[in-house]
Amino acid sequence: MKQPKQPFSVEAVVALLKEMLPRDKDVVALHEPCFQGNEWAYVKECLDTGWVSSVGKYVDRFEQMLQEYTGVKRAVAVVNGTAALHICLKLVGVEPNDEVLLPTLTFIATANAVSYCGAVPHFVDSSEQTLGLDPVKLDDYLREIAEIRKDGCWNKQTGRRIKAVVPMHTFGHPVDLDTLAEVCARYRLELVEDAAESLGSFYKGRHTGNWGRVSALSFNGNKIITTGGGGAILTNDESLGALAKHLTTTAKKPHRWAFEHDAVGYNYRLPNINAALGCAQLEMIPRFVSEKRALAEQYIQAFAGMEGISVFTEPDFASSNYWLNILLLSPENAVQRDRLLELTNEQGIMTRPAWRLLHELPIYRGAPSMDLSVAKDLESRIINIPSSSFLGASYVQT
Amino acid sequence: MKQPKQPFSVEAVVALLKEMLPRDKDVVALHEPCFQGNEWAYVKECLDTGWVSSVGKYVDRFEQMLQEYTGVKRAVAVVNGTAALHICLKLVGVEPNDEVLLPTLTFIATANAVSYCGAVPHFVDSSEQTLGLDPVKLDDYLREIAEIRKDGCWNKQTGRRIKAVVPMHTFGHPVDLDTLAEVCARYRLELVEDAAESLGSFYKGRHTGNWGRVSALSFNGNKIITTGGGGAILTNDESLGALAKHLTTTAKKPHRWAFEHDAVGYNYRLPNINAALGCAQLEMIPRFVSEKRALAEQYIQAFAGMEGISVFTEPDFASSNYWLNILLLSPENAVQRDRLLELTNEQGIMTRPAWRLLHELPIYRGAPSMDLSVAKDLESRIINIPSSSFLGASYVQT
Repeated sequence: MKQPKQPFSVEAVVALLKEMLPRDKDVVALHEPCFQGNEWAYVKECLDTGWVSSVGKYVDRFEQMLQEYTGVKRAVAVVNGTAALHICLKLVGVEPNDEVLLPTLTFIATANAVSYCGAVPHFVDSSEQTLGLDPVKLDDYLREIAEIRKDGCWNKQTGRRIKAVVPMHTFGHPVDLDTLAEVCARYRLELVEDAAESLGSFYKGRHTGNWGRVSALSFNGNKIITTGGGGAILTNDESLGALAKHLTTTAKKPHRWAFEHDAVGYNYRLPNINAALGCAQLEMIPRFVSEKRALAEQYIQAFAGMEGISVFTEPDFASSNYWLNILLLSPENAVQRDRLLELTNEQGIMTRPAWRLLHELPIYRGAPSMDLSVAKDLESRIINIPSSSFLGASYVQT
Repeated sequence: MKQPKQPFSVEAVVALLKEMLPRDKDVVALHEPCFQGNEWAYVKECLDTGWVSSVGKYVDRFEQMLQEYTGVKRAVAVVNGTAALHICLKLVGVEPNDEVLLPTLTFIATANAVSYCGAVPHFVDSSEQTLGLDPVKLDDYLREIAEIRKDGCWNKQTGRRIKAVVPMHTFGHPVDLDTLAEVCARYRLELVEDAAESLGSFYKGRHTGNWGRVSALSFNGNKIITTGGGGAILTNDESLGALAKHLTTTAKKPHRWAFEHDAVGYNYRLPNINAALGCAQLEMIPRFVSEKRALAEQYIQAFAGMEGISVFTEPDFASSNYWLNILLLSPENAVQRDRLLELTNEQGIMTRPAWRLLHELPIYRGAPSMDLSVAKDLESRIINIPSSSFLGASYVQT
């Protein structure tokens, strides 16, 4: 016999979260790193050998491990995800005054990387199925505003070239990459994946970041693995991979002692000590993913018994890392979002809303955009809840 | 009775270096870090607490320690010296199409930071006394080409505004900052010090980086102290300091959970684990400086007995960190530079020439410049020799 559902209230949500989460700490963080592997050993080796910076083996090893795990031909480690995105856009040829399509529901870095290139962000709506960029709606929109010319895709309304699309795999959930790739091919747009949040997430069995011409990862302190600060550029194009390495290491030509630089390059190389941390963390990723998926399953079950709220679940075509779990309020409960944020944070359970939609920030208010009603709706109803991998450890089926 | 000097030969130089340098390693590096203090303790604490990234106390402590050591009011730690320079230029208001005066004899980062702002590097000659930007020659040059208008200094030849001057304290030796500050005041130019190489160097008793409106430090692996990769912005202007922190941390407004960004910011924050290394390193800097100065003194004495070559010594007004020691060939021996580089490196003594002059690189060949004859001459005669602090340990007078 089916149990009747518990009615929604902010207090009931807090009670349910408290029941599931450990009581041994004053505050349950949104996401904490877990160092239980070779982190000490590798970092100490860096200090013992003096190889903490650009010289040392861990950067190469970390890049190799990223290649093996994601299946891409070339990974280039950099200082952070923002730097990775910046170089990705340079690699596909984004130039000043180009437009780049990206979701309005994303972290500011996606748009800032576009600005660093002197290009203009053009905001796209989200899909309820993935929370990420909606390729079907984008297709309809481009049919209206885009014109294919010999030199690419042009925006008939602004007179600017549209060079690339940057989907972001929101909170770890992959967008519909097959459909998006079709749209990109039809409109001659470069596909750049912002996979900052989706290390450990797969689309139709292939890792996210392995679908775009180039892609960006992040290893910030709140990500599924961390290097302190760090990121990586992924690509299956060997020549772009070599160029990524060159541009992120000041574009210096190899020589035993001479300094010859053949481009305006960047100092984006990940230090060896941070890469050492990354190697140890990446060794643990199968465990982290399984713990985070177990935690998500537990949240999903727990909230299945409550009306007016649900836990967002991965799309059918995806296996997600569930980087940050999402409580999705029903539309009639959206008004309760801020009270729920207040109460949970007051009670030591860290939560946060989705990012402020980028097209609403004063700095990007003048940027072109399509109808963004789905993103607006989602943003009003999303709350992220504690998602550290270790919170799921006890729920893993062994 | 004065000893006659030994005649110059490449072989004699190599022999003298070999005599002075330790024989226990296959290769004597140009500069290696030294971790003999609290490095491991602090880094381990980061790992134990999980505070490796943006959360944690070491970034604040490192900034505080930098303030105390350099005497500036505000230090802001960032991912590297290039990022520091980029933000310094933004802070003083460098805008696209402005010109920025900088030496042609410097590392590529000085010019690249200008390019990141969409501005144009304008190359200045060097002084034989300091190896850095020559303020007297600059003054004469500006008298010719500059025009002061209500809105600043303009280049009559190119029609562009000249916004700032970026001296670089070459290999640790301070430029003549008083004279340069006068020139800047006269021509309404912002003074931005590239102090990447001069942590531990003082001009007339006050630390380099404490003279410009803003200044940049570097803690790359080859610097006097290292954080793996890292840098800092220094300023005595509290409001610019606050803006530096804001711009380097994605320009996010402070809030417990909301994401509101009020400018196109940067992800340039130094991770806590790298700052931990920095705290331990900065505790050791008095020792590093004294060891490096003792090593320099030893080199100076050793080469005083040879004709046609000398070791560059600090200008009268400076106390230098002697970051990288410099063999300066006499003009007639300049032709021997490359053979000396070959032979030393072959024999396991790492050496290098100065950087390729920036105005000669294809990417900056079109940039405006003054007569650069002194820099050209110096570049043809400079060779950097091994300068790790521990090489000087046995020479320190106790």
